[in-house]
Amino acid sequence: MQSSNPEYSLRQVEQRMQQLACEGSDRAGEAAVAHLAAGGSRVRARLALHASFALGRPHSEAVAIAAACELLHNASLVHDDLQDRDPLRRGRPAVWREYGDAAAICVGDLLLSSGYAALADCGSQAARLIVRTHQRVGAVIRGQCADLGLKGRTDVSLATYEAVASDKSGPLLSLPIELPLLLAGADRHLPLAVGAASLFAVAYQMTDDLEDVERDALNEELNVVAVLAAAGAQSPLQAARRLALQRFAEARAAALALPEGAGQLLAEFADQRIHSLTAQRLPA
Amino acid sequence: MQSSNPEYSLRQVEQRMQQLACEGSDRAGEAAVAHLAAGGSRVRARLALHASFALGRPHSEAVAIAAACELLHNASLVHDDLQDRDPLRRGRPAVWREYGDAAAICVGDLLLSSGYAALADCGSQAARLIVRTHQRVGAVIRGQCADLGLKGRTDVSLATYEAVASDKSGPLLSLPIELPLLLAGADRHLPLAVGAASLFAVAYQMTDDLEDVERDALNEELNVVAVLAAAGAQSPLQAARRLALQRFAEARAAALALPEGAGQLLAEFADQRIHSLTAQRLPA
Repeated sequence: MQSSNPEYSLRQVEQRMQQLACEGSDRAGEAAVAHLAAGGSRVRARLALHASFALGRPHSEAVAIAAACELLHNASLVHDDLQDRDPLRRGRPAVWREYGDAAAICVGDLLLSSGYAALADCGSQAARLIVRTHQRVGAVIRGQCADLGLKGRTDVSLATYEAVASDKSGPLLSLPIELPLLLAGADRHLPLAVGAASLFAVAYQMTDDLEDVERDALNEELNVVAVLAAAGAQSPLQAARRLALQRFAEARAAALALPEGAGQLLAEFADQRIHSLTAQRLPA
Repeated sequence: MQSSNPEYSLRQVEQRMQQLACEGSDRAGEAAVAHLAAGGSRVRARLALHASFALGRPHSEAVAIAAACELLHNASLVHDDLQDRDPLRRGRPAVWREYGDAAAICVGDLLLSSGYAALADCGSQAARLIVRTHQRVGAVIRGQCADLGLKGRTDVSLATYEAVASDKSGPLLSLPIELPLLLAGADRHLPLAVGAASLFAVAYQMTDDLEDVERDALNEELNVVAVLAAAGAQSPLQAARRLALQRFAEARAAALALPEGAGQLLAEFADQRIHSLTAQRLPA
């Protein structure tokens, strides 16, 4: 029973992440553990646990994959916050802000290394998982570089915007579903998982942008509302919301088409977003 | 025959490193490949190939471990140069200097991820290698953090100096010998490999310091000559050289005690250093 109880499994994931992240147990290890302890919604861990259980995979494997994906995601957060000079993360000072730039580089490295170490818990299957994981980490880095390169640009097309958002956040959202699919021998469904997560990532970025229109304009950050305005949209705010709703609906449909309900939790997340976005009042 | 020809194998290692480092093939991938192409002595790759062949391990495994260790080392160089603001690497601008800080973080991340991906070439053995690798990467990060924390300090003891140098550079020098030992079932010799590499790393750092006494004093960098002077040594330059020679000799002895000549190349490297250090004229 315990093995399909997601809250029990999530606690195991937390424990494993903490163990791996304090390897070396110095200042970087402490900062890594403190960063993890600050919480977060653990979307990627939840997606991995759900997909693994739906596909009938063993509990230990589900926990390992969930910990790996969440550690890699947190590594990217720590380094992204430093690169973007975002001062806050989860309502607390970002790692670079609290411990300094050099320490933040070390903390991200430690979390990245920990992510791969978590995959070792899958024993003889680890090699296949690593190959796929490195491909997706490579895509995330490409997305992050592209995003950094677009800062301050006002001539970004919607296609470029979507490609960058998809690269930057899609891979670590699809990986938690891809890895269980891979081990379940359902390789042919991998492109569908990638597609669903990409659409979700794009829609999520648009929702985020809708909340930050003014701040992003001040900081010359890429924002879908500005992209649509530059493309001649009459009501860019409405157009952005419409587009976000459309992408969430597409993500939901793709996720539901995955075998054995492996993408059902992603579909539920899309549903929740659709509801709150529909209820939300846009700024005038 | 080819399989025990180190130059042939080294070319395979280079190829594998380039393939893995351009995953995503964007600006970060190009920068990573350019960084690798700038050369370096490939000490860690050579140590891994030598140890693997001495222990009778398969060629593909030797290449994988060599590529992994060299990629992890290069990841640490890219991030260290940024942290230390070292403008030059291998006679060319360091990655942060040529591509900017944010790109350098991405490049180091890509190389770190590539290091783990290289281990996947060892198939079902990869998991064991990863566990050990993460431990050693954790130690390197602890060493780097400790080193950063000592910048500007003038009250560093020789014991602390040696511990930090050992942590910072020892793990990625011993890993190329540790991983083949692990796969050859010679686990009981791992502490000896760690010890030999630690001593070599400490001696190497001292040699480096001897060449940078004035520059390090200007930049408030930790230097063994300053440490010995602060401890009351009459001729700190001579004392530092004596200590470096002693540590190289200890490293050599430990390396030669490894089974099947697995540490013989490390012993040769120590020998070369002993000769050039003995021949070198110290500044007045």
